[in-house]
Amino acid sequence: MSHVTGDMASDLSKRGTFIADSHSFLMKYGAQAIHNPYDEKNNPKGIVSMGMAENKLMEDILFERLSQPDMHGMSRDMLYYFKFSGTRDFRVSLANFITERFGTTRSVEPDNVMVVNGCGSALEQVASAVADPGEYLLCPSPYYSMVKFDCNIRGQVDCFDIPLTSQQENGKVRPFQLTLEDVEKAYQDATGQGLVVKGIFLLNPSNPTGDVYSPELLMDILLFAKRHQLHVIADEIYALSVFDSETQFCSVLALPNLPDPDKTHVLWGFSKDFALSGFRCGTIISSNKKLKTFIDNIAYYQCTPVLLQNMMRIMISDKKWLDSTYFPMNRQRMREMFTFVTNELEDLGIKCHPSKAAFFVWANFSPFMSEKTREEEMQLFQKLFAAGVYIIPGTELFCVDPGWFRVLFSLQKPYLQEGLKRLRSVLVRGI
Amino acid sequence: MSHVTGDMASDLSKRGTFIADSHSFLMKYGAQAIHNPYDEKNNPKGIVSMGMAENKLMEDILFERLSQPDMHGMSRDMLYYFKFSGTRDFRVSLANFITERFGTTRSVEPDNVMVVNGCGSALEQVASAVADPGEYLLCPSPYYSMVKFDCNIRGQVDCFDIPLTSQQENGKVRPFQLTLEDVEKAYQDATGQGLVVKGIFLLNPSNPTGDVYSPELLMDILLFAKRHQLHVIADEIYALSVFDSETQFCSVLALPNLPDPDKTHVLWGFSKDFALSGFRCGTIISSNKKLKTFIDNIAYYQCTPVLLQNMMRIMISDKKWLDSTYFPMNRQRMREMFTFVTNELEDLGIKCHPSKAAFFVWANFSPFMSEKTREEEMQLFQKLFAAGVYIIPGTELFCVDPGWFRVLFSLQKPYLQEGLKRLRSVLVRGI
Repeated sequence: MSHVTGDMASDLSKRGTFIADSHSFLMKYGAQAIHNPYDEKNNPKGIVSMGMAENKLMEDILFERLSQPDMHGMSRDMLYYFKFSGTRDFRVSLANFITERFGTTRSVEPDNVMVVNGCGSALEQVASAVADPGEYLLCPSPYYSMVKFDCNIRGQVDCFDIPLTSQQENGKVRPFQLTLEDVEKAYQDATGQGLVVKGIFLLNPSNPTGDVYSPELLMDILLFAKRHQLHVIADEIYALSVFDSETQFCSVLALPNLPDPDKTHVLWGFSKDFALSGFRCGTIISSNKKLKTFIDNIAYYQCTPVLLQNMMRIMISDKKWLDSTYFPMNRQRMREMFTFVTNELEDLGIKCHPSKAAFFVWANFSPFMSEKTREEEMQLFQKLFAAGVYIIPGTELFCVDPGWFRVLFSLQKPYLQEGLKRLRSVLVRGI
Repeated sequence: MSHVTGDMASDLSKRGTFIADSHSFLMKYGAQAIHNPYDEKNNPKGIVSMGMAENKLMEDILFERLSQPDMHGMSRDMLYYFKFSGTRDFRVSLANFITERFGTTRSVEPDNVMVVNGCGSALEQVASAVADPGEYLLCPSPYYSMVKFDCNIRGQVDCFDIPLTSQQENGKVRPFQLTLEDVEKAYQDATGQGLVVKGIFLLNPSNPTGDVYSPELLMDILLFAKRHQLHVIADEIYALSVFDSETQFCSVLALPNLPDPDKTHVLWGFSKDFALSGFRCGTIISSNKKLKTFIDNIAYYQCTPVLLQNMMRIMISDKKWLDSTYFPMNRQRMREMFTFVTNELEDLGIKCHPSKAAFFVWANFSPFMSEKTREEEMQLFQKLFAAGVYIIPGTELFCVDPGWFRVLFSLQKPYLQEGLKRLRSVLVRGI
């Protein structure tokens, strides 16, 4: 009876209880890292976070740009309600920006660009628009695990993994390479189990591997999706964070013809390519009229305030700054830090994936595990976290190959050095 | 077959289709008013909106405050992820502000104040936390109809009306008066129909009537809720917009003892009392631990960026400005405009409700209808809208008594004059 009383005290709905009881590894450790951040002077025993996917390499340049007088232009309309799925001005700038920077085949229409408060919200919305509770999206794994949380927490949409490994079988030329055969096999497996598959979620460039998909593979997947009447959600949030100078990113919007434009939806935002995760702005690019009405009807609940829309509009319209400062500096700094962290890890005997984009070194820590199991991987994670360094164990990113870790490199060098020192200390000296 | 193809073209999920096909009177006409706004010089044929609940009387004072140099204090942490349910600093300020301004019995704990992007989002979240799809909240009508939309659009929670009328029966001393008997009767009616009632939604001060509930009535309702294990969602978004100098607002937080604190949740925000609907900031005040975990788990999707949290924090901490400028000026200007619009309408033979708070004159237009029916009311609305003035017909706010309209008065006088001129023209001269 006291148990019943205990339950009644909080007495949420079934849905409320499900959401309250949901756990996410990344949210749990991310919150701890935010709560107790390492700072050389003020909190030297705090956590060095090489886990949360942020780019802090551009802080000086961004901060300087955002502090310029043109950014202080507050206008009276910013006090009031606005078009929640994005002001006309911001949509026009975004459409121009995406058309130019993504090299789209046709100009993106401002009406086809919708603004929401972050790409996580964008995914939550699009997933629930294309799939009903209990239905599935195919998703190449390893992948950023919050994708599953975004789809599932309120939308009750689940992910069916397309498992990739470091083994180069079936003619693959790279570890963790995605092929059309992988997509086909996962689709057959899922439907064979009686599951309803409504779409394919594609993170390109990939998080955590930093792989960039070829135009040919993208087209093959889009044609496959069309044959099976599947939606494709192409999350291109790292589109402009390709640091490898030999690699060319290809957006699905840059393909000569989209096989099924009404079922092809692109997500992008300011959190990664503009290192502005605090501004909470994502975009959904889609020409599906019904989806646009769907977004308009719920945009009120997940909008980005105009004051911030305006700052981002000014920033992406400043072509001189983008071309001569922001993008070249960002690529150069990312390259330097990727090389630095990769070299440090390789020096420890940790092999690293040849990533081309995004913020991570995808690194094989299995030499430091007695067995290649999830349990061993988690033990290593816990040892490292106890030593004050946070990196993400790969099985938490649904990697089927235990031993891999996602190590963030897009941070200031002294901060990375402290983190690497802690890593080395645990791995080499066991403390 | 072409119909199937037609459907397949957009092919959203059942849920996606439901949301895309949802309609809201306020959103439809609100969007038209935003799209074609009256401006004496630039758009003299545009719509004079006396429909959308915004306070534009404080624009000069707010704008001046928000333009002061202390508001430009951007810091580097604003670029990055933060505690999504509100930064510590902002929560502390909010807790102090609410404790002081709402006259709470005990100090509000910063941990019990959660920040979300607007009160609509706050309601959406709390409603779905306390009720499952198909379950009900009791709601005194007339009420701001977006309440139903907020509960229903994604959460599938419905409202069961507690109908109030202008008739003063059963010992009521005021038209549209809410009594405990009304609540009890609605509860019996709903449960008698086999419906599952999970809570009571109480908009206090009321929108549209501008009534302020007495401490005794509030306590009676809270005790009733406790007896029936119902949650109470007290939406106090107009708490500090009481313009009648004789009237004292009482928050449920100011009651000597909450009968069931774990099931009592207060909503408040910046859109109305601070006339900052564009900043998208609402708060949920609750000590229910499970609800707090629920909010934390989805706060990422509906947060307010730190840059704006910081501006609002500075504003609500500026006691001198609040006490000597903002609140007294706001009350005075509201009083003036309420009196002005009321007098103008009474002059036309339209009786007005003696509102005490919020932004509306609740006015009986039935002398201008040949019959007291919803159809006649909507015809009158359409005539007025065609003449370029937007006011809300009461039956769209679930008023059971046709003929009432909600007329916004919290606007600049010349703007109101133009709107009243158009009203008069239709009502008196029929054009």
